[in-house]
Amino acid sequence: MASSASCIFCKIIKGDIPSFKLYESARVYAFMDIQPLSRGHALVIPKFHGAKLTDIPDEDLTEILPVAKKIAQATGAKDFNILQNNGRIAHQVVDHVHFHMIPKPNEEEGMSIGWPAKNADMDQLKAYFEDVKSRM
Amino acid sequence: MASSASCIFCKIIKGDIPSFKLYESARVYAFMDIQPLSRGHALVIPKFHGAKLTDIPDEDLTEILPVAKKIAQATGAKDFNILQNNGRIAHQVVDHVHFHMIPKPNEEEGMSIGWPAKNADMDQLKAYFEDVKSRM
Repeated sequence: MASSASCIFCKIIKGDIPSFKLYESARVYAFMDIQPLSRGHALVIPKFHGAKLTDIPDEDLTEILPVAKKIAQATGAKDFNILQNNGRIAHQVVDHVHFHMIPKPNEEEGMSIGWPAKNADMDQLKAYFEDVKSRM
Repeated sequence: MASSASCIFCKIIKGDIPSFKLYESARVYAFMDIQPLSRGHALVIPKFHGAKLTDIPDEDLTEILPVAKKIAQATGAKDFNILQNNGRIAHQVVDHVHFHMIPKPNEEEGMSIGWPAKNADMDQLKAYFEDVKSRM
């Protein structure tokens, strides 16, 4: 299993740094965020070390969402966001893939989202779609 | 399989509304967002109809992230966000679980994130953690 000696999340998985562990299996580890945006803010991570989603083998990804769901249910959060960031510009701080489960109890707590949506040019979108599809 | 006659995403899955389909399997459907935040913005959804992550059976969640990864790779996006919203206050618009894969090519395009982090009171966090853990 890929691991990085300098990675803070790999140290948490190994137990070298303590954490409020909510769940652990062969491939997944989950714990409370200690700088929470709201009460119940938790992280679900693959044990496999990789910076971005595209670095993680499929078999290390399959259990992530069932675990995030289980934690959301355990917190009793009605409204919440699941977020995973890839790259500094996309708000990633720790370079080990992590999924946030962030309860959204009110406007002030939890994450806020900016959404600069565009109406796509359908011809351009279709051309780009065909390009992407050809690489799937 | 749960389905809703009035749900726009269930209509897309059935083919009653056209979409730029990137991927389809027994349990998952993926297509381009037609109001993209950036080029390559795509949606990955379980075919099982449910409004929130907590409504979806585990077996309908396992393939979601491998598919989102595959799409991210096909777009060539270096930086990107994976986002799934639960509830109006958490920015959910369509009440059928959907995962956004949103490339973040620059500051202007893609989603933006507000992050009002707190330093937790460790005693309070520990007490709350034990409460959540007891329900896992």
